[in-house]
Amino acid sequence: MAAALEDTPVSYEDLADIEREFDDAETEIIRQQVALTQPLYERRAHITSQIPNFWPLVLEQAPPDIDQYIQPSDSALLLSSLTSVEVEHFEIRAEGGDPRSVAIRFGFAPNEYFTDATLEKRFWYRRARDGWAGLVSEPVPIEWKKDRDLTGGLLRMVCAVWEREKKEAGKGGEEGRRGMWEEQRALKKKIDNTGMGGLSFFAWFGFIGRRVTAEESAEVMRLDREMKGKKPALETTAEDEDEDGAEEGEEDVGMSLEIFPDGDDLAVAITEDLWPSAIKYFTQAQEQDALSDVDFESDDEGQGEPDGSDVDSDTERPAKKLKPS
Amino acid sequence: MAAALEDTPVSYEDLADIEREFDDAETEIIRQQVALTQPLYERRAHITSQIPNFWPLVLEQAPPDIDQYIQPSDSALLLSSLTSVEVEHFEIRAEGGDPRSVAIRFGFAPNEYFTDATLEKRFWYRRARDGWAGLVSEPVPIEWKKDRDLTGGLLRMVCAVWEREKKEAGKGGEEGRRGMWEEQRALKKKIDNTGMGGLSFFAWFGFIGRRVTAEESAEVMRLDREMKGKKPALETTAEDEDEDGAEEGEEDVGMSLEIFPDGDDLAVAITEDLWPSAIKYFTQAQEQDALSDVDFESDDEGQGEPDGSDVDSDTERPAKKLKPS
Repeated sequence: MAAALEDTPVSYEDLADIEREFDDAETEIIRQQVALTQPLYERRAHITSQIPNFWPLVLEQAPPDIDQYIQPSDSALLLSSLTSVEVEHFEIRAEGGDPRSVAIRFGFAPNEYFTDATLEKRFWYRRARDGWAGLVSEPVPIEWKKDRDLTGGLLRMVCAVWEREKKEAGKGGEEGRRGMWEEQRALKKKIDNTGMGGLSFFAWFGFIGRRVTAEESAEVMRLDREMKGKKPALETTAEDEDEDGAEEGEEDVGMSLEIFPDGDDLAVAITEDLWPSAIKYFTQAQEQDALSDVDFESDDEGQGEPDGSDVDSDTERPAKKLKPS
Repeated sequence: MAAALEDTPVSYEDLADIEREFDDAETEIIRQQVALTQPLYERRAHITSQIPNFWPLVLEQAPPDIDQYIQPSDSALLLSSLTSVEVEHFEIRAEGGDPRSVAIRFGFAPNEYFTDATLEKRFWYRRARDGWAGLVSEPVPIEWKKDRDLTGGLLRMVCAVWEREKKEAGKGGEEGRRGMWEEQRALKKKIDNTGMGGLSFFAWFGFIGRRVTAEESAEVMRLDREMKGKKPALETTAEDEDEDGAEEGEEDVGMSLEIFPDGDDLAVAITEDLWPSAIKYFTQAQEQDALSDVDFESDDEGQGEPDGSDVDSDTERPAKKLKPS
């Protein structure tokens, strides 16, 4: 179908202006939402902390788009040692921060796999010059015990590449990343030899995503505001709506070395589903337990979670996975 | 894993209470969200109404979970005649209404398929005694022109069954629906002979869903409130989280005669994705048009939609399709 704006009084700038206002409204909604639910999450944390295995049971019921990333070896570790999960919108009060940025924290009991008591993965919502916007992160090292690294060394190598990237960032930045450094060649070789099938959930801590600095994002935001009503300087690329396609076309070496390409999707699934619906999943776990139980006494106990929210009642915003065909 | 509450000071009622408060917060958020975005949607409607083919171009870019229901014959009709789409949270101010209830309105130019200028499908968010909650609807008749019925008579038959159901509702209600009436037998036969593959998008107007009356829903809400702190009387069934499973196990004849079982999912996808992201999809359509164009001039015009919201930035609520495994 031919471009439809040519013979109309409407310009792309008019549409872009409305989209900007929708984005502002969206941001405001998230702020209100977090403010309204924060006390509830704190109360929930207090109560659920008294339930042994609460989070392991929640994970047992994790939806497919989370469950698919949890390997049997991961389950062994998570079910035996996961003590808490926490999602924080850590930029919600930050000057120039975005309420969409989230920190996902996992608490662990002493276990035979690693020495970390807490693993925190941060995701920053940033905008790139080419119009892309989304979550980016930094690799989080894990102190694996001897011969216990569930990522088979991949995570450590990603951290090494990241350290090198930070060192090189000064000298040339983007350009500096076009070449392959020793650390990158090593990681590339490892990835090629490993094959990413059955990759550990813990490789997620190595997710980096698009290289968009806080500075670039802030500048884009500033330009975006200034642009209001003027001809936009930003280009909306396919990356906006189809990240995978974007990654395929992405020249950046960093992308080809991403060990957990869907890391941002997983962060969104945890933030928007596992976290808010934890009690629902816990109750399901109890019910399954009760159903597989002949004792009707305990079956009765499987009751009592009247929140049957069957529809995603966020009625204004697209779900991330609803990607254009 | 064994039921985890037995040896704790926590009761299912404690968890149910928190879930109720989360549900209240969620409802409040939707109210604020609609209030905040309503003026923007009105402005968008005013501007886009000046763009010929705006909605057909948006539909061209519809995500898979909407596109999958649009058959080529539907496209012919939609692309040639769809003039407007509108989503209204019609119960948002209603006493005892739920802001999750939505009316989806389609405007059509005169066309050779049907005489209706507007088709409106309403979905009510209701709660059932068994703990289920979700969207229910009523069949919407379409005045097809001779030999143009894209549903091959299915929609008309569903409407006939619905009329009969309403008549019978007085006499026995639920029980009255166990048997098969003439209209139901006819529809059943039609369904069996048709096979639901390649079903027209317009069969969606025949979606009914769970038979939950406004009265039942209101009563459940009332009981739910009274129950606060007491032992819940509602049972959370698998239907809460897995509607399909629920429908398979569903005795209700009505369910076996549902011609568009995913009708509520489609309503959610339109409400949460197509509607809020319409300008994004329109811009994509323009860009695809530009990309398939050698003229770089028009390629430039493909720019200017800086809202690259790549993540579903509703950061507190589960996406409906994230269903437990």
